[in-house]
Amino acid sequence: MNMRLLIDEKERKYLVKGDCDVHINYGVVSGEELQKTTPGEVLRTHIGNKLNVIEPGIIDFMEKAKRGPQTMAMKDSAIIAGFTGIKSGSRVVDAGAGSGVNAMFLANIVAPEKLICYEIREDFAEIARKNFEKAGIENVAIKLKNIYEGIDEKNIDLISLDVPEPWEAVSPAIESLKIGGYVTSYSPSIEQSKKFYDKLIQSDARFTIETVECLVRNWDLKVVRPFSRMLGHTGFITFARLIGRGT
Amino acid sequence: MNMRLLIDEKERKYLVKGDCDVHINYGVVSGEELQKTTPGEVLRTHIGNKLNVIEPGIIDFMEKAKRGPQTMAMKDSAIIAGFTGIKSGSRVVDAGAGSGVNAMFLANIVAPEKLICYEIREDFAEIARKNFEKAGIENVAIKLKNIYEGIDEKNIDLISLDVPEPWEAVSPAIESLKIGGYVTSYSPSIEQSKKFYDKLIQSDARFTIETVECLVRNWDLKVVRPFSRMLGHTGFITFARLIGRGT
Amino acid sequence: MNMRLLIDEKERKYLVKGDCDVHINYGVVSGEELQKTTPGEVLRTHIGNKLNVIEPGIIDFMEKAKRGPQTMAMKDSAIIAGFTGIKSGSRVVDAGAGSGVNAMFLANIVAPEKLICYEIREDFAEIARKNFEKAGIENVAIKLKNIYEGIDEKNIDLISLDVPEPWEAVSPAIESLKIGGYVTSYSPSIEQSKKFYDKLIQSDARFTIETVECLVRNWDLKVVRPFSRMLGHTGFITFARLIGRGT
Amino acid sequence: MNMRLLIDEKERKYLVKGDCDVHINYGVVSGEELQKTTPGEVLRTHIGNKLNVIEPGIIDFMEKAKRGPQTMAMKDSAIIAGFTGIKSGSRVVDAGAGSGVNAMFLANIVAPEKLICYEIREDFAEIARKNFEKAGIENVAIKLKNIYEGIDEKNIDLISLDVPEPWEAVSPAIESLKIGGYVTSYSPSIEQSKKFYDKLIQSDARFTIETVECLVRNWDLKVVRPFSRMLGHTGFITFARLIGRGT
Repeated sequence: MNMRLLIDEKERKYLVKGDCDVHINYGVVSGEELQKTTPGEVLRTHIGNKLNVIEPGIIDFMEKAKRGPQTMAMKDSAIIAGFTGIKSGSRVVDAGAGSGVNAMFLANIVAPEKLICYEIREDFAEIARKNFEKAGIENVAIKLKNIYEGIDEKNIDLISLDVPEPWEAVSPAIESLKIGGYVTSYSPSIEQSKKFYDKLIQSDARFTIETVECLVRNWDLKVVRPFSRMLGHTGFITFARLIGRGT
Repeated sequence: MNMRLLIDEKERKYLVKGDCDVHINYGVVSGEELQKTTPGEVLRTHIGNKLNVIEPGIIDFMEKAKRGPQTMAMKDSAIIAGFTGIKSGSRVVDAGAGSGVNAMFLANIVAPEKLICYEIREDFAEIARKNFEKAGIENVAIKLKNIYEGIDEKNIDLISLDVPEPWEAVSPAIESLKIGGYVTSYSPSIEQSKKFYDKLIQSDARFTIETVECLVRNWDLKVVRPFSRMLGHTGFITFARLIGRGT
Repeated sequence: MNMRLLIDEKERKYLVKGDCDVHINYGVVSGEELQKTTPGEVLRTHIGNKLNVIEPGIIDFMEKAKRGPQTMAMKDSAIIAGFTGIKSGSRVVDAGAGSGVNAMFLANIVAPEKLICYEIREDFAEIARKNFEKAGIENVAIKLKNIYEGIDEKNIDLISLDVPEPWEAVSPAIESLKIGGYVTSYSPSIEQSKKFYDKLIQSDARFTIETVECLVRNWDLKVVRPFSRMLGHTGFITFARLIGRGT
Repeated sequence: MNMRLLIDEKERKYLVKGDCDVHINYGVVSGEELQKTTPGEVLRTHIGNKLNVIEPGIIDFMEKAKRGPQTMAMKDSAIIAGFTGIKSGSRVVDAGAGSGVNAMFLANIVAPEKLICYEIREDFAEIARKNFEKAGIENVAIKLKNIYEGIDEKNIDLISLDVPEPWEAVSPAIESLKIGGYVTSYSPSIEQSKKFYDKLIQSDARFTIETVECLVRNWDLKVVRPFSRMLGHTGFITFARLIGRGT
């Protein structure tokens, strides 16, 4: 299945299959015509509106992913991947999967290595699976399992937690991480971060720990000012790097 | 050469060769002893201070890289890589290389694909080369060439600019980018961003454009408050995605 | 006219005359009953909803002021008043008045001294006058005059500009300010701030100059996290303090 | 005693008595000469450096105040005064006084009304008194008393708390505030703010409550960018407005 991203004159985006008729706000594009078009070309709807055609990338699939549960913001996924330095081949565990949007992002980086997702809700796992499929991401496995009860995988580079009680995953994480690996936790409330932190420093293992919040402010360069509206908060991210198992 | 990262009780880090004597603030560790130690173990200096030993990752090499010219902050590299969705195999051009710290970050993600760096100063290129070597990064090629004068590579996914006059690289970027690819520019002054933006919208090509600043605030969870000192500004980042070459 | 502020169980606020019937979302309170109530008491609508009754203050009148043109945010008025140290008796000029919300704030502080507002649009002046009247503010005079063409008042402590071309008011400000006094400018775009700054440093007078942006982030302490939505930008504020007229 | 503020060519400021010899980094100004100078004039040191002379205001006295204990930042004092709408004649209680810098700010606004400060440490009170005297502020009274044990004053418009356990002052505040008045608390840690908040909502009185943090970012307009260094955190400010005493 060949996906296409169509971008109209107002920068609205349409993520579509490359061989079906597309009905958008103000017009129709036939699947036949779409199929003949290569990325970079300009299509016109039957009433003449222009559509730029491009090949969608991971960012487009993330933006257009179906969202059931709350998903992590792109900026936060980027900071987690960036500050831990994961790359192709890194062994990563993601829990809970939720809609799978963060998993898509991480899987894109670690491919062809398989990303392992823990998720306890079958309905969320189903949403995530569909999002992976649509994006053509094949290197993810979802386990219907509670990460608090243990992590099967060993020698892990990154465990990315987006769960309500991250402190419950500290002991499993210590067992699972490789030395120098990270367990990160993303929590909306700083009280959750504090409990996670306390559990880390009370454990037998030794971690270096850093907690951050990442704010991204968009600017309108037409008038050279930031936009009025801003996402003032998503979550606090704690990075705990395992540097020793004994104390 | 087997590098090791030693972390002392105050979380100071020492990036060392795995077979040499190490002299740190308050003690010595012999190369012989270091060689026998595996990651996760605890070493002691001759006066008894503990040192955790881990295998360094890309983040450690970036932190400890030699810095000649000003280098991009980790958060900004992370946002550039994250918002453009690069991965193993992505074709990326970085200019100017500077100390090579951003290049290290990007090369780590796109490996084994080769990252191409443009840098006009031989002294900077030399610093960058040494940083790559120390980090064991082999998939980077530095060209001593001004990116304003053209980009040899075609079909590029990301051109990451950190140059004083990014607008001079817009025409070369249009030639070089693949459809759907990004040219990003990192500038301390919003006036530079504005000029880059103006050049983009005046070009024959069509771009979707977004300009952001990314602020990362660190929290001290011992007392549950942000730290007083904060990096209030590094640079504005503009993301321009090529969606069509004609107008 | 005795105004009252009624606050319902969901913290919605109603600013009402103290002797009229009040019709709110889900009920009615009679003027008769309202008149018998003193601040601190709890009223009930005819269907039993509770309303706390208080005497409104300047903040309430500002929140409930009629807004025609865009008005300055409370935080910005607070920073302007605070960083310039105005107080009862300070001589202040405000231009343009707009809806008069910033003027209300400043007039409240400098009373009984009269605040002078410059405004070129009669319709805005009319909105401002009504806002002043409702709030019981009597120490403001509005001049239908363009501040770019001169300031009649001399020996001024603070000239607060919220006009599209603040640089046009620099020469009049130099004539009008007392030594040690401030001219401040509030501009949405940093390009306006830059032009104002350039005009200040090119003038014959000597100023100390500071430009800031003030961000206020609200926290939800029920769950100990910042709210998701945040006002990401209002305006940049430049403070120029006249410290000498010659160069 | 006639104070003068001298500002040199690098914008360093010297707050001096108007009739004494002044020795600064690179020169001397005689008291005799200083006395003959009026604000706005330019003095020269014996080696020719220029000094602008102005009459200092409250902001200058705050900047130059002697600091023993940590003092509140100007921005936070401004937000407290601004969001509560205090003015000449407002009845305000400040606790603890610390160095008196916040008290100076508030007293300047409420004059000629007397501001009441609670402070338990005699050494801090002594520092505060000297700061008030130097600034010529006469409308402040310091009580060597713990505010947790009760507030003597009634019908208060604003109680500004900067104490380690603000929740201990909630009951006294309810007794002391007028209806519609505010008790604010300034705390470095969000955990302190949370405890204050919990105590407020568990009390018999009814409050509207808002918690904010105020960030001020300075811009360098020479190059049109924010400065790199920024004060990333001072304190969280909670505003609780008493709108009813019963529940």
